[in-house]
Amino acid sequence: MAAKPGIPKGTRDFSPVEMAKRNYIFNTIRDVYHLYGFQQIETPSMEMLSTLMGKYGEEGDKLLFKIQNSGNYFSGITDEELLSRNAAKLASKFCEKGLRYDLTVPFARYVVMHRDEITFPFKRYQIQPVWRADRPQKGRYREFYQCDADVVGSDSLLNEVELMQIVDTVFTRFGIRVCIKINNRKILTGIAEIIGEADKIVDITVAIDKLDKIGLDNVNKELAEKGISGEAIAKLQPIILLSGTNAEKLATLKTVLSDSETGLKGVEESEFILNTLQTMGLKNEIELDLTLARGLNYYTGAIFEVKALDVQIGSITGGGRYDNLTGVFGMAGVSGVGISFGADRIFDVLNQLELYPKEAVNGTQLLFINFGEKEAAFSMGILSKARAAGIRAEIFPDAAKMKKQMSYANVKNIPFVAIVGENEMNEGKAMLKNMESGEQQLVTAEELIGALTK
Amino acid sequence: MAAKPGIPKGTRDFSPVEMAKRNYIFNTIRDVYHLYGFQQIETPSMEMLSTLMGKYGEEGDKLLFKIQNSGNYFSGITDEELLSRNAAKLASKFCEKGLRYDLTVPFARYVVMHRDEITFPFKRYQIQPVWRADRPQKGRYREFYQCDADVVGSDSLLNEVELMQIVDTVFTRFGIRVCIKINNRKILTGIAEIIGEADKIVDITVAIDKLDKIGLDNVNKELAEKGISGEAIAKLQPIILLSGTNAEKLATLKTVLSDSETGLKGVEESEFILNTLQTMGLKNEIELDLTLARGLNYYTGAIFEVKALDVQIGSITGGGRYDNLTGVFGMAGVSGVGISFGADRIFDVLNQLELYPKEAVNGTQLLFINFGEKEAAFSMGILSKARAAGIRAEIFPDAAKMKKQMSYANVKNIPFVAIVGENEMNEGKAMLKNMESGEQQLVTAEELIGALTK
Repeated sequence: MAAKPGIPKGTRDFSPVEMAKRNYIFNTIRDVYHLYGFQQIETPSMEMLSTLMGKYGEEGDKLLFKIQNSGNYFSGITDEELLSRNAAKLASKFCEKGLRYDLTVPFARYVVMHRDEITFPFKRYQIQPVWRADRPQKGRYREFYQCDADVVGSDSLLNEVELMQIVDTVFTRFGIRVCIKINNRKILTGIAEIIGEADKIVDITVAIDKLDKIGLDNVNKELAEKGISGEAIAKLQPIILLSGTNAEKLATLKTVLSDSETGLKGVEESEFILNTLQTMGLKNEIELDLTLARGLNYYTGAIFEVKALDVQIGSITGGGRYDNLTGVFGMAGVSGVGISFGADRIFDVLNQLELYPKEAVNGTQLLFINFGEKEAAFSMGILSKARAAGIRAEIFPDAAKMKKQMSYANVKNIPFVAIVGENEMNEGKAMLKNMESGEQQLVTAEELIGALTK
Repeated sequence: MAAKPGIPKGTRDFSPVEMAKRNYIFNTIRDVYHLYGFQQIETPSMEMLSTLMGKYGEEGDKLLFKIQNSGNYFSGITDEELLSRNAAKLASKFCEKGLRYDLTVPFARYVVMHRDEITFPFKRYQIQPVWRADRPQKGRYREFYQCDADVVGSDSLLNEVELMQIVDTVFTRFGIRVCIKINNRKILTGIAEIIGEADKIVDITVAIDKLDKIGLDNVNKELAEKGISGEAIAKLQPIILLSGTNAEKLATLKTVLSDSETGLKGVEESEFILNTLQTMGLKNEIELDLTLARGLNYYTGAIFEVKALDVQIGSITGGGRYDNLTGVFGMAGVSGVGISFGADRIFDVLNQLELYPKEAVNGTQLLFINFGEKEAAFSMGILSKARAAGIRAEIFPDAAKMKKQMSYANVKNIPFVAIVGENEMNEGKAMLKNMESGEQQLVTAEELIGALTK
C-alpha cells in the first residue's frame, strides 16, 4: 500500500486558478518592464556555494538549501572529520552547490561573468523562484518568486524616476491604490552626522516611526534610553516632527542639514526625483518618509517602499540605490538601482480586494457537448474554425451524461456551451448557450465565431 | 582578491536575446495549449525523496539532486553508519528532499493530493525546469525546461486527435516543417503475439528501423542473431516491408494481425486517429511508423514522436497514452495521454533555420538620446506619452557622448532613435531617426506615436 504523498513544508502547488492569477501578476509586471526597456535574463536555480556563502550574513548561510554532491560525497573527508559531526563545516564538503537565495547575488555573478557581452547601462529584469530554509509560517514560504528590475552602470537619477513610474504604472494597472514612500540613505547619514550619533541611525528611525502611536514625549524618552544625548535629541526635534508636503519637508531638511554635505546631497537627490515625478503626473501618492530604513546596510542613495492603502499588509514592493554590486566578485565600480515586486503579497491584496479582471482568470471560452461519435465529428469541424479564430475552445472528450458535461462547464467557468445533436447537425448548425444568461441561439460556425469574438 | 565566479557544470545563464527567444517558444506553446482548453499548474521544485525515489529506475535514483536537511543532518545516524561511508544509503538519512526529475511524477502526486478538487477529465499543462545529475554534454543539461500537456481521466481517442492537432498547430506557428510519427503499443504487442516472441519486441523494432540502411537480408540476419525463430521471421516479412500510405499500412496490418485481438484494437485506434485527423486537414505530414517504440514500458496505447524535416536532430516532441498514472501513489484507474515539447531542441532548430520572427526577439522600439538635464526633461514628456500608447521606449539615462548612446541603440537592436536638442525643443518636436534606413523626420509626439504604432 503506497503512502499518501505530500510536499515539503513551506512549498506549494499552484492550481489552474491560482496559476492564472499569478500569470496575470507576472505578465502585468513584465509588460511594464518591457515598456521601460528592461530585458529579461534567467540564471540557474543552483549556484556554486562559493558564490552564495557569506553574502547573506551568518544567518543567511544557514538558510541556504545545499545540494549533496553526486556520487561518493564522502571522498576527501577523514574519519575524524566525520565523527566530529560538525554539520556546518562538513556541509561545504558534502555539498558544492546550493539553491539561489535571492536574485541579486546571481545577478551580480552574471554581470561579472558576462561583463564583456553586456552593454551598459544594463537594464535587466528577472522573475524566478528563490529558496530559503526559513521556518515556514503564514505568508512565508520556502520557495517563492521574486520579480526584480535593476539598472546597473548608470548613476543618473532618471533611473530612480523611471522605477517610480514603473511602480505607479504597475499598481495602476492592478487597480491597487498605493502610497509610494521614498527616502534617501544620504539624508539619514546627514542626520546622524548633525547629531553626532552615526551608529544610532536605526534606533532613531525606529523611534521616529512611533510618533503617531506614542507621542513626542515618549519618542524622546525612547531616544534617551537608547543612549542618545540630550543635545542630539534637541537637534532631532524638527526631524521627528517633520510634516507637510514633500516640498515643505525638503525645505526643513535643507535648514537642519545645512552643515552636512552628504545630507544636503540626499535632499537634492530626493528633490530632483520628486520634482521630476511631479511633472510626469503620477497616479499614486508619493511621500518622503524618513522612517524608511530598509536594507540600510545595502542601500547608499534613494530607498523606496510601497504600501497598499486599502489592505493591512506589509510593504508590497521595495528597492533602492546601491554601490558596488559586484565588488565581492572582484569587479569594482558597478553601482545601480533596483526594485522588487512582492508577488505573493500582491496576490493576497488582489484576492482580498477582488481585483482580478475576469478575462485574466477565465480559461476556456466555449465547450462543445459530446453526444457521440457522429456529433463529435461534426463538432470538431466547427471547433477547428473557432480555434483558428483564436477562441479557446474544447469538446468534452467522452459522450458522457449531459449533466456531467454541463457540470464540467460550470466548474471550469466556461461562459458558452455549444450543443450539437441530430437536429443541429441536420441544419449544419450548433445551439449556442450563454451559461450566464441561459439564452440559446441556433447559429452557423461563422455566427458562433462572431458571437464569441465580438 | 575574490575568485572569478562560475556556475555549476551543466547549467546555463540565459541572456536577454536567449530569453526573448525562449519566451517566444514557451508563449507559442502556451497559447496553443490554451486554445485547446489546457490549464496550467505548477508544482514545487523540491519534492519529498519518498515521492521521487524508485520512480525512474535504479539509474534515475542516482541522477536525482538531493537536498541536504537543514540543521543537524547527522542526528539519528550512528557512528558505525557514518564510517560505513555508504553514500547511497546515507543519502536518504542526510536528505529528505530532492529536485524534481521530470514533470510526470510531480503531476501524478498532484492528482492524488488534489483529487477532490479536480474535475475530470483534467487537461493540465506545466512548463517548468527539471534537474538531472547526468553527465553534461552537448545539448544535454543538468537543468532544463519541460513543456508537458496531459489529459487524464478520459479514454476517448479524441484526446489523441487533439494532441496531434496541437503539435501540428505549434510547429506551423514556428514555421518548422515536421513529420509526425504515430504508432501504437497494442500493434507492437499484437506483432509479438503473432510471432510468439513477446519479449523480443524491442529487438524487432530496432531491426526493422535499419531496413533502409542495411537491406532486408541483413535485417533478417540480425533478427535471427537475436534468437528469433525462422518461422517468426517469415511471419514478420509483411511488417518489415510495410510501406505505402497510412491506409495501405493499416490494411496490411489488419490481415497480418487478424489473430490478435490486442493487435486489431491497436490498428482500429490508429485508424480512428488518422482518419479523424485527415478530415481535420493537418498542415504537416502524419505517418504510421512501427519502428517508433519510445517509452515502451510506460505507454500502453498511441505513441507519438515529431521529427524536424529540415534539420538533423533527434525527436523534438513526443508522447503517448499510458494507464495507471497514479497507481504508485495508491490511486488506481487514472489513465491519460500526454505530449512533451523539447524546448531546447526547438530552440536549436529555430536558430539553425533562422525562424525567429523579428517582433518576438526585438525589445525596445525607441531610444531617446540624452543631451542633458533640460533636453531629458522635455524628452521624458514625449516618452511618457509613447509608453502610454504601448510603445516600448527608453531614454539613455546619462548625458553620455552621442557615439556611446548610438552604439547602445545599435547593440540593443533598437529600430528608432529620437534626438531632442535645443532646436527640436524650441519647436516642441523630436527628430525621429529610422536606424535601418537612416531616414530622419522632425515630428510631434503624436506623429512619433503614429509612426511607431502603424
